[in-house]
Amino acid sequence: MKLHVRFLLAFVLVAGVGTQALAQTDPLPSWNDGSAKTAINEFVHATTDQASPRFVPPEERIATFDQDGTLWVEHPIYTQVVYCLDRVPAVVKAKPELAKVEPFKTVLSGDRQAIAKLSIDDLLKIAAATLTGMNVDEFQAEAKKWLDTARDPRWKRPYTELTYLPMSEVLKYLRANGYRTYIVTGGGQDFVRVYSEELYGIPPEQVVGTAGGTSYGYDKNGRPFLTKEPKLLLNDNNAGKPEGIHLMIGRRPYAAFGNSTGDRQMLEYTKAGDGARLAMLVLHDDAKREYAYGPALGLPDTKVGTFTQALYDEATKQGWIVISMKNDWKRVFSWE
Amino acid sequence: MKLHVRFLLAFVLVAGVGTQALAQTDPLPSWNDGSAKTAINEFVHATTDQASPRFVPPEERIATFDQDGTLWVEHPIYTQVVYCLDRVPAVVKAKPELAKVEPFKTVLSGDRQAIAKLSIDDLLKIAAATLTGMNVDEFQAEAKKWLDTARDPRWKRPYTELTYLPMSEVLKYLRANGYRTYIVTGGGQDFVRVYSEELYGIPPEQVVGTAGGTSYGYDKNGRPFLTKEPKLLLNDNNAGKPEGIHLMIGRRPYAAFGNSTGDRQMLEYTKAGDGARLAMLVLHDDAKREYAYGPALGLPDTKVGTFTQALYDEATKQGWIVISMKNDWKRVFSWE
Repeated sequence: MKLHVRFLLAFVLVAGVGTQALAQTDPLPSWNDGSAKTAINEFVHATTDQASPRFVPPEERIATFDQDGTLWVEHPIYTQVVYCLDRVPAVVKAKPELAKVEPFKTVLSGDRQAIAKLSIDDLLKIAAATLTGMNVDEFQAEAKKWLDTARDPRWKRPYTELTYLPMSEVLKYLRANGYRTYIVTGGGQDFVRVYSEELYGIPPEQVVGTAGGTSYGYDKNGRPFLTKEPKLLLNDNNAGKPEGIHLMIGRRPYAAFGNSTGDRQMLEYTKAGDGARLAMLVLHDDAKREYAYGPALGLPDTKVGTFTQALYDEATKQGWIVISMKNDWKRVFSWE
Repeated sequence: MKLHVRFLLAFVLVAGVGTQALAQTDPLPSWNDGSAKTAINEFVHATTDQASPRFVPPEERIATFDQDGTLWVEHPIYTQVVYCLDRVPAVVKAKPELAKVEPFKTVLSGDRQAIAKLSIDDLLKIAAATLTGMNVDEFQAEAKKWLDTARDPRWKRPYTELTYLPMSEVLKYLRANGYRTYIVTGGGQDFVRVYSEELYGIPPEQVVGTAGGTSYGYDKNGRPFLTKEPKLLLNDNNAGKPEGIHLMIGRRPYAAFGNSTGDRQMLEYTKAGDGARLAMLVLHDDAKREYAYGPALGLPDTKVGTFTQALYDEATKQGWIVISMKNDWKRVFSWE
């Protein structure tokens, strides 16, 4: 019997006491004390304590996160745009006639200033040429290969290391409390899915993004495959975010995190629900550790993750919490 | 200490022995012994036993199920079509000019033979008029109200009681073994989401179906809401099933269940993956307990859940398992 008891005790130590110890540790160690950290803690307690009048049943616990600028660095240029530009030579190699056609000609020239001036229409042409027309599996393999080797110009690190440690803590904290965490990104759904599970613990089925159609067909051995088509099904920006949430999740989130005007409707939609709802916006005001940009800081609009004064005013009016990267985050990156 | 030991023992009885007892119980009691039941059991063991060469990591365990004719009765007419027809008087009340326009005129006449002869185009017009144009929340409330009161003409029961008990057992068995179960239906995604959680334990975010767009807007109090638009985003039939699986899940299923030619591509796509893959088709050959229909049985094509001879031949050739409702199922419904 003695041995039996010892076994039972060991079992309880692992299964029971372990959980208790976890609950007493600060789940947000990279956050400074302040209104942002307090808001997250209060939201979790209010929605998961069975005695709370604002308790949310586990099956309804959905939290949505924008990616670029909210979970990882977006400045000065979205990672996916870098990928598309880097893919242009391979695309032109397969279709040499593109070498003399704009915007491919400019990209091949390597003239950084000219590339920076490409219009949205030009970028869409480049996106269509580099992100569609291939087998879904081939696309995943290519994107993965690129992510393994590409480095960002400032820190000389893989882009996959440019995730924000405090936000990773929020993801884990919410999941530990029964929330399903979703990415809801203006970026390409298939691109983000390539790394979301490894980087954030968010599986492909919990990535909602700008999505194109695919077409089902067969290879020469009769084996079926899907081809990525240049047909836009969902533009997951602005009003497209709540529309995408309805399409892919079918429930209104209880918490939503963003950092730009493209996230405004998602936060509005989240807060319009009953009970406790959390809406937060990351403000990039830390030129030293990351970047400072956007009209809300009196800085020029860089067209990447625009945080306008109007967005700041709406946040104040609606009770959305603005996260100051400079003041609220003790650490920005895990490797600091 | 004695009390402590008793507590620990109680804990182990609940946490440990309970699981063991469960594992020894037949998870598929409504299935007769035979190749179908064996195939399900072998698939679960092969993909969840860590020692198996065909072990599948938990995060990749996805199983997809067609709904109409696979999880519940589809004959002689899809439940959602009954809903749409029943909604026509309310739509005409709101828009009286429709009363004199086909196909609404025919539906209002109540002439069953004429209604049965309506074309696919007519049904699409009725679907657009009855399933779109309203607030997403209003639609859910209306559909729920209808499901609570409507009765099927044969058994005089709520449609929600016409689910197949053996398939409910498969859903639970797979989930108990770490599989996420998805509905992948040609039916309307929003319609199926209204009842999928209660009926099958499948949450809205795991329902992939024929989906229309929504548009985000504001009511007179400035409160945001989504309107269902008559714009088709995904026709989740035939090739649309693997396309929808890629869009909404982003992983290839390990198991897929269907019952008609509309499920062929989903089963093909599933079986084309590496390792252990399970593809099964329900054959409706039980005129006594449910229905017998389809060309594969030498019966006329009723255009509802068509099971052709070609599908039967492909199943044989590809190693898909045909489930004979008559022979493989000990019970069909839970209330039998």
